[in-house]
Amino acid sequence: MRITALAGGVGGARFLRGLLTHLGRVPELSGATVTVIGNTGDDINLFGLRVCPDLDTVLYTLGGGIHEGQGWGRDGETHAVQAELAAYGATPQWFGLGDKDFGTHIVRSQWLGQGLTLSEVTARLAARWGLPHRGVTLLPMSDSPVETHVVVDEGEGPRAVHFQEWWVRMRAAVPAQRFIAVGMDRAVAAPGVLDAIREADVVLLPPSNPVVSIGIILGVPGVRDALRGTTAPVVGVSPLIGGAPVRGHADACLTAIGVESTTRAVAGLYADFLDGWLVDDADAEFAASPGRLAVRARPLLMSDVDAAADIAGAALQLAGELRPTTPAV
Amino acid sequence: MRITALAGGVGGARFLRGLLTHLGRVPELSGATVTVIGNTGDDINLFGLRVCPDLDTVLYTLGGGIHEGQGWGRDGETHAVQAELAAYGATPQWFGLGDKDFGTHIVRSQWLGQGLTLSEVTARLAARWGLPHRGVTLLPMSDSPVETHVVVDEGEGPRAVHFQEWWVRMRAAVPAQRFIAVGMDRAVAAPGVLDAIREADVVLLPPSNPVVSIGIILGVPGVRDALRGTTAPVVGVSPLIGGAPVRGHADACLTAIGVESTTRAVAGLYADFLDGWLVDDADAEFAASPGRLAVRARPLLMSDVDAAADIAGAALQLAGELRPTTPAV
Repeated sequence: MRITALAGGVGGARFLRGLLTHLGRVPELSGATVTVIGNTGDDINLFGLRVCPDLDTVLYTLGGGIHEGQGWGRDGETHAVQAELAAYGATPQWFGLGDKDFGTHIVRSQWLGQGLTLSEVTARLAARWGLPHRGVTLLPMSDSPVETHVVVDEGEGPRAVHFQEWWVRMRAAVPAQRFIAVGMDRAVAAPGVLDAIREADVVLLPPSNPVVSIGIILGVPGVRDALRGTTAPVVGVSPLIGGAPVRGHADACLTAIGVESTTRAVAGLYADFLDGWLVDDADAEFAASPGRLAVRARPLLMSDVDAAADIAGAALQLAGELRPTTPAV
Repeated sequence: MRITALAGGVGGARFLRGLLTHLGRVPELSGATVTVIGNTGDDINLFGLRVCPDLDTVLYTLGGGIHEGQGWGRDGETHAVQAELAAYGATPQWFGLGDKDFGTHIVRSQWLGQGLTLSEVTARLAARWGLPHRGVTLLPMSDSPVETHVVVDEGEGPRAVHFQEWWVRMRAAVPAQRFIAVGMDRAVAAPGVLDAIREADVVLLPPSNPVVSIGIILGVPGVRDALRGTTAPVVGVSPLIGGAPVRGHADACLTAIGVESTTRAVAGLYADFLDGWLVDDADAEFAASPGRLAVRARPLLMSDVDAAADIAGAALQLAGELRPTTPAV
């Protein structure tokens, strides 16, 4: 079974880890492969290095190197490099990078500087984290640089800041007026991205941010058309529980694009291609409403790997119901 | 008093630290300024970052951040970044860089990437280490990249390797056939370098490697002419004691260029501009020989900062004898 998933950062990565755990538990799914299309709109140049937070969160989480409590960054980190950069007065200082994490950014920047594409670099990084061995291919959504910028007004008129500055420095507390995907007009889907959607047996949308993660990937030319055109069932997992994000600032992002913070409204963003939608029991009334979309309610809190595995299993189950030719789970 | 010194790595940096200590002890020299012209032929791109080993050794030694035992690198280092790079299979692995040290290379590369010259970047780095406050200006010999390569034959015919590969990986044990200063034909002395020699009251040659440190600086167009033309006395400190380098591989370098490993032969490399030469007591017989060059014998082992300060004081003393207008020391 070929599974393709679109993923942002922490929520997406934890869902994917659950998915791999589930696949490992079900003998009939032992040959399944997973292609992850990662958001690169969060990418940022820091200290002259290319940082890809969402791709790294997927790599570290699936590879066993993640800081479990944070959900991002490496476990057992030290911060000698960052302290030196601060001593030299290098900016910005609001984005914390650990020493192990710097290793990733340095080698990525080195390889990009040698002329490799982000896809090629990501494949090399993924090899170190054992992803190919587990049947996982991580593809950046595009090899062209796309950066999500956020228009904010801190009292001196509107200005655009990098997504990370809004997310990390401002903690998304300053209202976002709108998002701009800088470079998207020139972006091309990375090699394999569109085929992975078209040729999948199942397409999954993990509970990633619908605006700045999934929404950005959907903006890559061809991705939305591929989702509309694929014969695979497309099943999503709601990132909201009772109208609130489990973590992150999805509500602030939805407000900025004029969409209500409800699981129904999020499903509406995907209405043109979504076949199945998992919602939390807290949103069970939506599951009962009539319509084309197959909605199922169940607990969606990914409190640990087992919980995430069960959610992933439920998503595959729903996909199986929607497309009987999909191998039974 | 304006003192200008040409410097390589460890030996040069320790001499300069001694010089500053000496200047601090002599009230009449409290207003002295020191301009250091640093060798950049050892510079190397590692992991996409620009590494300037000799400049950094001067910065760390004068700024109090040096690993005292090694003579290079930072004190209290950790190696998380390097371990990550190794895990990713990044090369080379034979050049050990600590996490604090990576901070310097990252910020230098960032600033170079922003369009600053190496001189401008070095001035920023020097500010963090407090050099301006101590009257010290550190200038790279050139803002143009110059890299010393070494022709070696490991049994498969001659090939050129970067100086650092020969020095660090091969530990200079493979005979060098010759040195090539790649980029020197296009190099220009950095702003201030030639004037610092022309307008100095004293020019000092610390006990740096005469071939791959001082010799490379002398190859920068205009430097040798400036040394020949300056009215300042030029006083050098022998890097050899009894024909052997105290540390490093000056003897292997001298052999490669067909020069005997003696303090007399090293002085001969500077014959066209050298006025005074400090040799160790072990080479006292050279001091007694007749000739234009003023040679003085004294202990030259820089066993600690005090010993280095005394040697620097002796060099200034000799300079004072050679040019009576120089303030007495």
